[in-house]
Amino acid sequence: MIKTPYLLFLGDAPDQLAAKVAQGIKDWRPENAVGQYRMDGCKADLGLTDMTLREARAAGAKTLVIGVANRGGVISQAWKKVLVMALEEGFDLASGLHNLLRDEPDLAAVAQATGRVLHDVRLPEVRYPIANGKKRTGKRCLAVGTDCSVGKMYTALAMDKEMRARGMNCSFRATGQTGILITGDGAPLDAVVADFMAGSVEYISPDNDPDHWDLIEGQGSLFHASYSGVTMALIHGGQPDALILCHEPTREHMRGLPDYRLPTLEDLRDVALTLAKVVNPTCQVIGISVNTQHMSEADAAAYLAELETRMGLPATDPFRFGAEKLVDALATV
Amino acid sequence: MIKTPYLLFLGDAPDQLAAKVAQGIKDWRPENAVGQYRMDGCKADLGLTDMTLREARAAGAKTLVIGVANRGGVISQAWKKVLVMALEEGFDLASGLHNLLRDEPDLAAVAQATGRVLHDVRLPEVRYPIANGKKRTGKRCLAVGTDCSVGKMYTALAMDKEMRARGMNCSFRATGQTGILITGDGAPLDAVVADFMAGSVEYISPDNDPDHWDLIEGQGSLFHASYSGVTMALIHGGQPDALILCHEPTREHMRGLPDYRLPTLEDLRDVALTLAKVVNPTCQVIGISVNTQHMSEADAAAYLAELETRMGLPATDPFRFGAEKLVDALATV
Repeated sequence: MIKTPYLLFLGDAPDQLAAKVAQGIKDWRPENAVGQYRMDGCKADLGLTDMTLREARAAGAKTLVIGVANRGGVISQAWKKVLVMALEEGFDLASGLHNLLRDEPDLAAVAQATGRVLHDVRLPEVRYPIANGKKRTGKRCLAVGTDCSVGKMYTALAMDKEMRARGMNCSFRATGQTGILITGDGAPLDAVVADFMAGSVEYISPDNDPDHWDLIEGQGSLFHASYSGVTMALIHGGQPDALILCHEPTREHMRGLPDYRLPTLEDLRDVALTLAKVVNPTCQVIGISVNTQHMSEADAAAYLAELETRMGLPATDPFRFGAEKLVDALATV
Repeated sequence: MIKTPYLLFLGDAPDQLAAKVAQGIKDWRPENAVGQYRMDGCKADLGLTDMTLREARAAGAKTLVIGVANRGGVISQAWKKVLVMALEEGFDLASGLHNLLRDEPDLAAVAQATGRVLHDVRLPEVRYPIANGKKRTGKRCLAVGTDCSVGKMYTALAMDKEMRARGMNCSFRATGQTGILITGDGAPLDAVVADFMAGSVEYISPDNDPDHWDLIEGQGSLFHASYSGVTMALIHGGQPDALILCHEPTREHMRGLPDYRLPTLEDLRDVALTLAKVVNPTCQVIGISVNTQHMSEADAAAYLAELETRMGLPATDPFRFGAEKLVDALATV
């Protein structure tokens, strides 16, 4: 568990896109973002107050989060200087980079000497149990996709935001690096050892109030040859009461697999629901989330209308048209 | 890859069952078993020649395989003495124990000094790739189960034996610790990191001759909440042309999950085939393997006959009645 709130480190980001992790934190958990730290030459700006390390500490920030992708997989000497100072000022550090903070001898030494924590969210920090499959209290929603990278995390975060606005009792449960940094907690499922995958999902989504919803972040796709095992573990560890089907209609093949066509939403519905019912016989598919970024607004609206008729389910693009329809459907479960 | 042939170390096994890994090697790969090494008080006997370390080396043995379960998860001092001598005599060591050879400082030091290899097959020895889903040459058969521990490994090994006897071109591909020790190679799938599971299966089952069959060892079950992700990765990494359905008809609940009933063979057929067709549209279910150990011979025969009528597929218990029917069916694919 990463201590919040954060100072967001944008480093020397070459453009706004390089700071997309920091942007995600600011968009979805603004209360976690006390300010931003930018180095000379930084081309990203989240519109937060620029702060020195000391100012951010005074404002309550507890962890410096690396919210920017580094170049070439190397933590540069320029970054290092700031990171070491941050440890000395009393910050923990958190990073989702592939190259780990703990593998940098100088950072490890200063963290040790100052008693600060280095969070590398790329790897698990917990020894997860083997899943026991026992029915848990509270309710759970999981987004499943026809492919990877079709908007499953965005869908869950948008629903979480709408549900909070309505005063509903809910938690976003992160299963990937970005989600973990946004919320400060979760399981990096793609890095968990096979036998413990479903157990890690049970671990992050424990018993809860009867009216509480966990919005569990989806990963991969049951139809993606590389990552389907991860998705399967999410369905059986997640024990969903509600599934959201996610899709990107203009994609010509599965991401990274040029020989594979996407399944239909009907295929996804049938397979995902059959498998979810193994652990939760009352599971329902309650709606469809479509990433329409490559369609005109008129085409997107027409496609969603056609889909609602065809599938008999509410369909929206939560980025373009909001998540209200999906939350309305969830509220009836 | 573990160097064969082996000297099988039975240690101070308290009974025959404790030596079941060694028994598996002797049963399925007798050509890998030069002899057995028994300590004072050993109550197991494989019927192989008892050999000293030196005699076994002279007979060509290259690896001492720990073919016995240890008590309390500790490698005893009595064992250690033999294992150290074995390294000094020029043996590599191989073990599937949970407590690792490499974690014993004395064994690690002697192995280092003598240039011998310690194989802990509990953990991967390879950095597996992410699966690419590309269609591979050759043919593949995978056993899938209604539950864990219903005879998937036994089924594949029995088919492999029958196919070898018929002169068919085939390989058993191990995905678990016992299978790896039997054949000297394979991927310990339950210990592979999530993102690389399907890739590890692709790795152990590469392109092959058009008439060659890989008999891939199954794991877990699509219907087992704890391990279904592993099974999913096997199906999508394995790219099977043929599926065998495995079942144990007297089991009252899923193994380790008292609240879960077993699925029907029809459920298993439908879900497994649907998922297998994602990576191999021509995949077929070709037969049923039933573990009838808790049924009388007459009841078993009647059950299998009923199953053949009901499912329209050949059904056998390969332990009791042989694997011929399954191989006959495979030969038509």
